[in-house]
Amino acid sequence: MKLWGGRFTKQTDKLVESFTASIGFDQRLAVDDIRGSLAHVKMLGACGIIPQQDADRIAEGLRSILADVKAERFPFLVENEDVHMNIEKHLIERIGPVGGKLHTGRSRNDQVATDMHLYLRRETKQIIALLVELQQILIEIADANIDVIIPGYTHMQRAQPVLFAHHMLAYFGMFSRDIERLQDVLKRIDILPLGAGAMAGTTFPIDRELVARELGFARIYENSMDAVSDRDFILEFLSAASITMMHISRFCEELILWSSQEFGFVELDDGYSTGSSIMPQKKNPDVAELLRGKTGRVYGDLFGLLTILKGLPLTYNKDLQEDKEGMFDAVDTLKGSVVLLGGMIRTMVIRREHLAQTVKEDFSNATDLADYLVRKGLPFRQAHEVIGKLVLYCIEQGKFLNGLTLDEYVAHSELFGTDVFEAIDIRTVVDARDVHGGTGTKRVMKAIQNAKERTAAMGRWIEDALQNEDMEQ
Amino acid sequence: MKLWGGRFTKQTDKLVESFTASIGFDQRLAVDDIRGSLAHVKMLGACGIIPQQDADRIAEGLRSILADVKAERFPFLVENEDVHMNIEKHLIERIGPVGGKLHTGRSRNDQVATDMHLYLRRETKQIIALLVELQQILIEIADANIDVIIPGYTHMQRAQPVLFAHHMLAYFGMFSRDIERLQDVLKRIDILPLGAGAMAGTTFPIDRELVARELGFARIYENSMDAVSDRDFILEFLSAASITMMHISRFCEELILWSSQEFGFVELDDGYSTGSSIMPQKKNPDVAELLRGKTGRVYGDLFGLLTILKGLPLTYNKDLQEDKEGMFDAVDTLKGSVVLLGGMIRTMVIRREHLAQTVKEDFSNATDLADYLVRKGLPFRQAHEVIGKLVLYCIEQGKFLNGLTLDEYVAHSELFGTDVFEAIDIRTVVDARDVHGGTGTKRVMKAIQNAKERTAAMGRWIEDALQNEDMEQ
Amino acid sequence: MKLWGGRFTKQTDKLVESFTASIGFDQRLAVDDIRGSLAHVKMLGACGIIPQQDADRIAEGLRSILADVKAERFPFLVENEDVHMNIEKHLIERIGPVGGKLHTGRSRNDQVATDMHLYLRRETKQIIALLVELQQILIEIADANIDVIIPGYTHMQRAQPVLFAHHMLAYFGMFSRDIERLQDVLKRIDILPLGAGAMAGTTFPIDRELVARELGFARIYENSMDAVSDRDFILEFLSAASITMMHISRFCEELILWSSQEFGFVELDDGYSTGSSIMPQKKNPDVAELLRGKTGRVYGDLFGLLTILKGLPLTYNKDLQEDKEGMFDAVDTLKGSVVLLGGMIRTMVIRREHLAQTVKEDFSNATDLADYLVRKGLPFRQAHEVIGKLVLYCIEQGKFLNGLTLDEYVAHSELFGTDVFEAIDIRTVVDARDVHGGTGTKRVMKAIQNAKERTAAMGRWIEDALQNEDMEQ
Amino acid sequence: MKLWGGRFTKQTDKLVESFTASIGFDQRLAVDDIRGSLAHVKMLGACGIIPQQDADRIAEGLRSILADVKAERFPFLVENEDVHMNIEKHLIERIGPVGGKLHTGRSRNDQVATDMHLYLRRETKQIIALLVELQQILIEIADANIDVIIPGYTHMQRAQPVLFAHHMLAYFGMFSRDIERLQDVLKRIDILPLGAGAMAGTTFPIDRELVARELGFARIYENSMDAVSDRDFILEFLSAASITMMHISRFCEELILWSSQEFGFVELDDGYSTGSSIMPQKKNPDVAELLRGKTGRVYGDLFGLLTILKGLPLTYNKDLQEDKEGMFDAVDTLKGSVVLLGGMIRTMVIRREHLAQTVKEDFSNATDLADYLVRKGLPFRQAHEVIGKLVLYCIEQGKFLNGLTLDEYVAHSELFGTDVFEAIDIRTVVDARDVHGGTGTKRVMKAIQNAKERTAAMGRWIEDALQNEDMEQ
Repeated sequence: MKLWGGRFTKQTDKLVESFTASIGFDQRLAVDDIRGSLAHVKMLGACGIIPQQDADRIAEGLRSILADVKAERFPFLVENEDVHMNIEKHLIERIGPVGGKLHTGRSRNDQVATDMHLYLRRETKQIIALLVELQQILIEIADANIDVIIPGYTHMQRAQPVLFAHHMLAYFGMFSRDIERLQDVLKRIDILPLGAGAMAGTTFPIDRELVARELGFARIYENSMDAVSDRDFILEFLSAASITMMHISRFCEELILWSSQEFGFVELDDGYSTGSSIMPQKKNPDVAELLRGKTGRVYGDLFGLLTILKGLPLTYNKDLQEDKEGMFDAVDTLKGSVVLLGGMIRTMVIRREHLAQTVKEDFSNATDLADYLVRKGLPFRQAHEVIGKLVLYCIEQGKFLNGLTLDEYVAHSELFGTDVFEAIDIRTVVDARDVHGGTGTKRVMKAIQNAKERTAAMGRWIEDALQNEDMEQ
Repeated sequence: MKLWGGRFTKQTDKLVESFTASIGFDQRLAVDDIRGSLAHVKMLGACGIIPQQDADRIAEGLRSILADVKAERFPFLVENEDVHMNIEKHLIERIGPVGGKLHTGRSRNDQVATDMHLYLRRETKQIIALLVELQQILIEIADANIDVIIPGYTHMQRAQPVLFAHHMLAYFGMFSRDIERLQDVLKRIDILPLGAGAMAGTTFPIDRELVARELGFARIYENSMDAVSDRDFILEFLSAASITMMHISRFCEELILWSSQEFGFVELDDGYSTGSSIMPQKKNPDVAELLRGKTGRVYGDLFGLLTILKGLPLTYNKDLQEDKEGMFDAVDTLKGSVVLLGGMIRTMVIRREHLAQTVKEDFSNATDLADYLVRKGLPFRQAHEVIGKLVLYCIEQGKFLNGLTLDEYVAHSELFGTDVFEAIDIRTVVDARDVHGGTGTKRVMKAIQNAKERTAAMGRWIEDALQNEDMEQ
Repeated sequence: MKLWGGRFTKQTDKLVESFTASIGFDQRLAVDDIRGSLAHVKMLGACGIIPQQDADRIAEGLRSILADVKAERFPFLVENEDVHMNIEKHLIERIGPVGGKLHTGRSRNDQVATDMHLYLRRETKQIIALLVELQQILIEIADANIDVIIPGYTHMQRAQPVLFAHHMLAYFGMFSRDIERLQDVLKRIDILPLGAGAMAGTTFPIDRELVARELGFARIYENSMDAVSDRDFILEFLSAASITMMHISRFCEELILWSSQEFGFVELDDGYSTGSSIMPQKKNPDVAELLRGKTGRVYGDLFGLLTILKGLPLTYNKDLQEDKEGMFDAVDTLKGSVVLLGGMIRTMVIRREHLAQTVKEDFSNATDLADYLVRKGLPFRQAHEVIGKLVLYCIEQGKFLNGLTLDEYVAHSELFGTDVFEAIDIRTVVDARDVHGGTGTKRVMKAIQNAKERTAAMGRWIEDALQNEDMEQ
Repeated sequence: MKLWGGRFTKQTDKLVESFTASIGFDQRLAVDDIRGSLAHVKMLGACGIIPQQDADRIAEGLRSILADVKAERFPFLVENEDVHMNIEKHLIERIGPVGGKLHTGRSRNDQVATDMHLYLRRETKQIIALLVELQQILIEIADANIDVIIPGYTHMQRAQPVLFAHHMLAYFGMFSRDIERLQDVLKRIDILPLGAGAMAGTTFPIDRELVARELGFARIYENSMDAVSDRDFILEFLSAASITMMHISRFCEELILWSSQEFGFVELDDGYSTGSSIMPQKKNPDVAELLRGKTGRVYGDLFGLLTILKGLPLTYNKDLQEDKEGMFDAVDTLKGSVVLLGGMIRTMVIRREHLAQTVKEDFSNATDLADYLVRKGLPFRQAHEVIGKLVLYCIEQGKFLNGLTLDEYVAHSELFGTDVFEAIDIRTVVDARDVHGGTGTKRVMKAIQNAKERTAAMGRWIEDALQNEDMEQ
């Protein structure tokens, strides 16, 4: 049976190497790895664990490697297995055996955890920044279209007309929670594992607080076994990323529907659409569809890591090596999706005339007619019934509510008066929802104002947060 | 073909009813539903939207229904579809048509969301309380066994000896993060949707701030469309629950291993074990296994809801009805698991004598021997190599490191002296990790002290948090 | 802190009981459990392992219990833990200590596995039957609407017109694969574990082939350890159920869109729709939305069990008790969903006039215009380009292709002749796809014919398959 | 705020390109894409849809591209978006405008589906071949160790001793089902979508049967809309892959436990283990851990695609582009895992002496002692109780059952005789399970024989199946 399988088994050794080597993907951590090492060696020198001059030589060597990494000329080798060994071996080649002292008082277990905390802290902050940019775009759109009314839906049936700006601000609200959530996740990313050693701490008199300050960590893991086993911070990030992708998928679903011939509410920019290889008339909302699809990818990343961690005994197990690719994938996917969504909505054309016509051709002002009767004294449940019959009458007559005569109204209830036409005017209907969080124009304008203040505050937070990150890579 | 399928199709109507009716499970929300209605009607009266006397009658009627619900004598009917209609119809039966005014200015869409916010807020606080109780048990165990040493593992291979108390505190650390995380989730549960109406707000001059104060909500949804569409708060809870269950699964995995004949570190109480129907000698760690298995259940709840929400257009869609059972299941599973884990570890017997013998029979002091050589001046990488050969020598000789003679040591490196035996004594090895977060006895005692302070502070937080919850149900 | 947590911890013992007891849900296996026991005891007698008269008395006792179970008067008790012990204890009460001989040569580990194989075999066959019924409904709809044309979409953009019947048959194809897949899954459900004992086999000279024949199993597990550990058959079922639910979710998504005011292609029956508590005009496609949402539930069931089984050492572990509820939930959800989908589409009204108008108002005949030019000799890529420009021209002119004059055509390409109007007639366009699997009317009529033959054959298969199942429960 | 986000937004256009372009990953389909095109163009010529000489020139051009692809010198360009356009554009460059005729009568929608069917068909067959190789290794191990006894576990507690060979054959059984399942999945992979066009079929008189024969497809999609929408075949594959990975994870879990100091049943080869950067004594079962972890990855791939497809309206949507990377990842992961598992177990050392001692030191012969009493006439439940007490007595005395005197036996039941020692001898205990599927030596030898016949038959199947695949890539 050699014919079909033999070639695999012959390569078993190479397969082991390629399966267990992580350098193919963990080289993304190189800058963070060096950053962590620089802090570690500074501490080793300061604490007298290694001579200060050794610490200085190591730091110098690391900085020259860092430069090479940033210039994309560092030669990562698969035989050196992972990013840590690649850098350490190279360091020793450059500065001699003294480089071996770098690993004093630490282990790869706490080292790799530190790298990932550094990496994910920076990326999370950047994602927050991108989400705030997306929110700014939403504010711009809301601001510029404050006069546009769009049908509001429940169950994909027209329910009540709303301001287009109000609809946009619903997403603003979702992204605000996403930002808040990521800020909370940051609290549990921003903890230093270094100093946990392999799992029990170290016998060298290291100063973890010094390293934490150097790397800008707010806290230190209080237990060494927990420090090297913990991947909660990635799980939390993946959960938050999944929720944000879910929001994006909902937005994209709407954009796809709105771009259809049937809805026709918006037209996406050519830059975010593609044609068909066979149907000349097509203009497909590819980007929106793709972002919707990418939700599955991030969900998969989350479920992958949840599976990996389930039932794993303490402390470090090699299974944990599988924590990285899903994290990188989710970071890339989320960043790309947020940016593309922003670009897509910033460039879309809102078909104002079509919408203006559209909102007149439905029964979404029916609730207001019921409320009208309630205000005239009818209990809500009865009013609801009267209007139900009126709508049925309209359908039979092929009319909408604004097309009925007063006589037709009165025939259904004597409570109707001439003020009924004003009450069901679509603009009245929108503005009547003059309640905190409602779609009334004044309320929405106030909401836009609040949103602007919120993003301005977030801008300041971001400036601050990014200050202790290495943003040059 | 009627024989095999006919009976299903005949019952289609009933199936529709039973499939779409939610009363079978959403009756769990009855107390919260009434609580929300009481606040709503108080506001309706206070704002003059309905006459104060009507508001009073409705409130009275609701309170009498609440009493019936708590006494488990309220007759939920499937033909009334859901918990809201069951209560409203019953209210009207009790107090007459005036009961119909209760629904003024609200919709089932914002009502059900409010119920779930109230429900999950209370349950989340209770789960935090249970986690703190679990942490107290961990502290007690750590305190009472501060002298016990256990092998520490990486890759399921013995790595370095640690205090049993240190191992327990690793879980303390995980549960601390879980608590912190749930407190963060609470911030996004603790937002009031009521007032959003069906999706656009309401035309009645309601006072949402008043309702929020009445129900103890910290915030109000700023956008009505978002308010009725949002299920982030459940997703966040399910993510947090999944992570906690993952921690529990890791603990249970260890308890199962430790209870095996091969490890023999602990013996679980009979109350948490069962026998075999066929093998008389068996004592199985059933509860630990079951909790490990229940992790899958909560993961499933999370992925169920993530799937449901993906690609859903705004605002309310009936798909959202599927948000409840998974939430209830996760709440029940998590609460039960936390309590059972606490009971299981509180009653387990730590086999001290066996452990005392066990920790002497391995090479987990090898790192310290390497560190010993480093302190004598050898670079770490060389020391690592020397000890590697020494371990190999031991295996060939059938000895452990503490069984070698000084001559044997010196034969491997002239740096060895008589102080080597003290250096590799298991107690020395443990206490040498005298670093923040390390397993040294002094450090662990300090960690226990910190843990006590932390739980005491949490106790005060909980007293406070539970004050505005109805805990009588 | 007793106030908030105390009540849970006080009930720990009861919690252990309720957490570990499975009788609350595994009583659904009672009929299968007894059926398995009847076969087992028959074999014990036939092999002389127990006296024939004992076997007879046990069988008699079991049959009387079976009658009680079917009549829903069997008293399941939580203190008897699970369905097996409930029945065995009851048996001993009824017929005395001889009842204890029933458990000779088996264990609960192989017994519960047998129950689940029996249960899932019967349910899978029933689900196949329901799917065939659903297919029959699709055939009826296709048959009755063979003349109706509907826009066909890619990327939610109109692509090419298709027969409504063709669209229905796309789902027929999906459900055919679902049926085929379930038939394949059946092969791995239809294996007998009984005789595996606790995990190693039994010391009694049992005859597993006899039991297999008695219970109608096609095969026997070849390895006792595998027999009690294996849950592949449930996983396979859950995977198949997930795929079918995914198909249902796609269908429901389309029904929801088609029921919107914007599309207006169909009107769902009132029996499958509901109104709004606040908006009198609403008619919501609740059932379609709910079925779409229920997809998440079944996905969650699948992922729950995948998680549970991951990394579980052989053989039986208590984690496996968590295999049942998800299976029951998926069975119930899938059966209900298939039946409801059938009822929903059987009763929906296809809005023929609206569709007839709709299909004239788009560019979905553009491909045919390109093909027209290709037939006149233009390479496809050039033809594609010409038509692209023509479509653009139409949009600017506010016309569709059938509204252009011959001059306008010729202005774009001299290859156009008077036959162009026939070529782009919507009926021509549909029928021109006269290829195996295409939407041409003749092809679709042939496909309907094939579909009828297929379901007829499946009907015979089902009659056969259900013969060795106890269908009375 | 330009500082932190600006660089992303500036690159939006490039991001759109890189996000929507699939050439980065779908170039893996190049060989299959060309193979499909060769069959298509042959048919176009044979049916007279394009002149035969054009067909010949296109085929020649395609073959030269195929050679370049296989030699890894084909220049895939990201601006050409996907694998199809890369090849088509290149074809036109090589042979001129006639190359444009290749796309006659097809669309990228049916083309890409065809590519994936071809790709996954070949890979699935190869995976089956690898699984059979793995089974052969299991047979070899079972054969070579037929005399070795190992403790058998339930609940991680020793249950009954089993042959090591029997334990290996449990995995043989799992992989047999995996193979069977993949063969079933193949049936639904082995269907040709080509000819479905964009979604409605094509207006050219193509001959789909000819193409199917040419590409070796067993069936043709019966409905064009289904053909381009269907991704069931990938889902089914991912489900099957998940189940196989789950089996691998269980095996690896056992190998990890067996390699621990506490169990010490096997020693993994150095080639499948690694050391520690800090602990000189460590030999870690890295590969086993990594394979266990990789299970999560494949689960994630499955869940990703399930999410993507949920609720997607017909027919092709861009979301479907996300179907590929997860499929490739699962194929690579599964193939690598199967090969590595085989290599790992083939090279592991079974510690026979240690096992021989181990199996004497437990109570796993207790069931047999109960069966002994049953054979002497005691009802099983009573025998169970007697032995329970005997085990307790042993534990108090620090003895095992084989260490008791006859007097001690008789003190517990007068039914005991001198034959009791033979009855509880570990070899007797094993061989007493002389039942179909049991661990008795004769049965296991027979099972090995059956297994050999089974793999031989599969070998023939594989030779056959791989014949119509292009295995040179």
